Amino acid sequence: MPELRKDPVLGRWVVIATERARRPSDFKGPGDNRQREAESCPFCRGNEDATPPEVLRIPAGAADWQIRVVPNRFPALSAEGEPSRRGVGIYDLIEGFGVHEVIVETPDHGPGLAELGPSGLVSVVDCWRVRALGLAEDPRLRYVLVFKNHGAVAGASLAHSHSQLIATPVVPVLVREELKGAEQYFTFRRRCIYCDILKQELADNTRVVCTNAHFVALCPFAPRFPFEVWVIPRGHFGSYDALSPELTMSLAELLSRLLGSIKRLLSDPPYNLVIHSAPTVESALAHYHFHIEIMPKLSKIAGFEVGSGFYINPMAPESAASHLRRALACT
Amino acid sequence: MPELRKDPVLGRWVVIATERARRPSDFKGPGDNRQREAESCPFCRGNEDATPPEVLRIPAGAADWQIRVVPNRFPALSAEGEPSRRGVGIYDLIEGFGVHEVIVETPDHGPGLAELGPSGLVSVVDCWRVRALGLAEDPRLRYVLVFKNHGAVAGASLAHSHSQLIATPVVPVLVREELKGAEQYFTFRRRCIYCDILKQELADNTRVVCTNAHFVALCPFAPRFPFEVWVIPRGHFGSYDALSPELTMSLAELLSRLLGSIKRLLSDPPYNLVIHSAPTVESALAHYHFHIEIMPKLSKIAGFEVGSGFYINPMAPESAASHLRRALACT
Repeated sequence: MPELRKDPVLGRWVVIATERARRPSDFKGPGDNRQREAESCPFCRGNEDATPPEVLRIPAGAADWQIRVVPNRFPALSAEGEPSRRGVGIYDLIEGFGVHEVIVETPDHGPGLAELGPSGLVSVVDCWRVRALGLAEDPRLRYVLVFKNHGAVAGASLAHSHSQLIATPVVPVLVREELKGAEQYFTFRRRCIYCDILKQELADNTRVVCTNAHFVALCPFAPRFPFEVWVIPRGHFGSYDALSPELTMSLAELLSRLLGSIKRLLSDPPYNLVIHSAPTVESALAHYHFHIEIMPKLSKIAGFEVGSGFYINPMAPESAASHLRRALACT
Repeated sequence: MPELRKDPVLGRWVVIATERARRPSDFKGPGDNRQREAESCPFCRGNEDATPPEVLRIPAGAADWQIRVVPNRFPALSAEGEPSRRGVGIYDLIEGFGVHEVIVETPDHGPGLAELGPSGLVSVVDCWRVRALGLAEDPRLRYVLVFKNHGAVAGASLAHSHSQLIATPVVPVLVREELKGAEQYFTFRRRCIYCDILKQELADNTRVVCTNAHFVALCPFAPRFPFEVWVIPRGHFGSYDALSPELTMSLAELLSRLLGSIKRLLSDPPYNLVIHSAPTVESALAHYHFHIEIMPKLSKIAGFEVGSGFYINPMAPESAASHLRRALACT
């Protein structure tokens, strides 16, 4: 049974995935960037039997499906039972209850998210919302984390375009820290800090990459990575799962342009995308504002950074935004 | 001029190293694991002219030196001027004042830290202390972060064994979070949480790797990485720079055995080592306890982890400790 364990000083939860336990000799190092071959791709149309039974198909029941959601075949967490929390001396642990799903974003092996076009992206963005909303109803879960690894270097073990979600009985530490920081700001100013960031960024206009009616893409003021981009809704939404059909279309339109620009500028770089949304039990928060963080993986993340939280970024966000704007204009 | 910029929500400082600014095409991705060639190694004895003028030589003035400390040739921060903090709307920034030094740990190109033996390690451990203490006297600095990247995959661009230090006018976010967590525990219990962790770990004895008179090496209860090991002094020390000669010897002895065991067990893996010590201006804290974190780099750190703070570790620390203990016994 996997376990969720909490660092007693930092309050940071990690998953000890004991069911994946390996011997020391199984660790070949992080240099292996191979992905599995296309002939045996379990995500291609026609190979539906190669995945665990699906959770969702869009359109429902259609043989020529557009999107499938399936349980991860090697889940980090177990969907069985109840999350039971207990102490071990000064430590805390939870038997590793949680949900780990894979969203197959297209039946075709070739295209990445950037090539699906606005209409393909509408389905993906909406599918993320549907699953987040569905899992939010499970009282055993407190957080649904939607994320995507694009490219082997960014951690995608299969080349076929897909995203994932992990739902847990605890809130990931970075989101918890954001909630705390945003709440402190709100207590002091009675305003949402993300709304204020948007206001300043739109007025300043040096880090904005692109906008539409409902969303703004910008390079944040203090980015950890070169070409890191955040997508923030103009309106105040605590939770991603509250997206209306109109906002879903708007987000898909913006993401499509943005991912196209990143792809062109940086030659289809590996990247990670993470949705930061409010915890499921408190989705309508006055002080928290959902957003998407996209981090191209262009440099090594040394343990130094991971060990200290201190990042050195050789690319100013103002330059990154300017490069991305120019790449956008090239369509 | 580089800048230190603060994320307004998380309070996390990053260095925007504008002097290293590059074009998008300069980012070749993180896959490049080559290191510079030995013929031109600026760290080998005889090539002293290839580095900036040295800050420290051990023994002082000796032609057959054992350790040299030199400024980083491509510093992330500038050692000139005063750190001036200012607001930019809702943001904070500090002109990037700081110190970035390289500790050349041996005049020989071949051996790594694990091969220097206890006597070689005493010099390294003491040199870290001397520089940390020296820089702590600079009132412009608040933190001295000592770290080591071993192997190209872990971020070492030169193969010749070396460590680094970065001294800044701000405290790295992970250390700040540790200080906060440890202070909360102390407020509640009137005891140091690290002292309590040691007590429980020594009694439990399932995650301890090795010990000596003054130090304990253990796999932490909630590690982010396979074979992550922490070294904690038995006595309560807030700051690394307060190490006595006796403790320096003791730490070197333990580190030498531990690094040897990691090297044997995992075939000389890439790793990162970070010293977490109290900020320079508050070195004798009742609630904080310095420690060293060693993180073998055996798996990819996906942006998912970096973007959420949520880690999945396939190796239970109890198994990791047991493997490391067995490798220790093989000497």
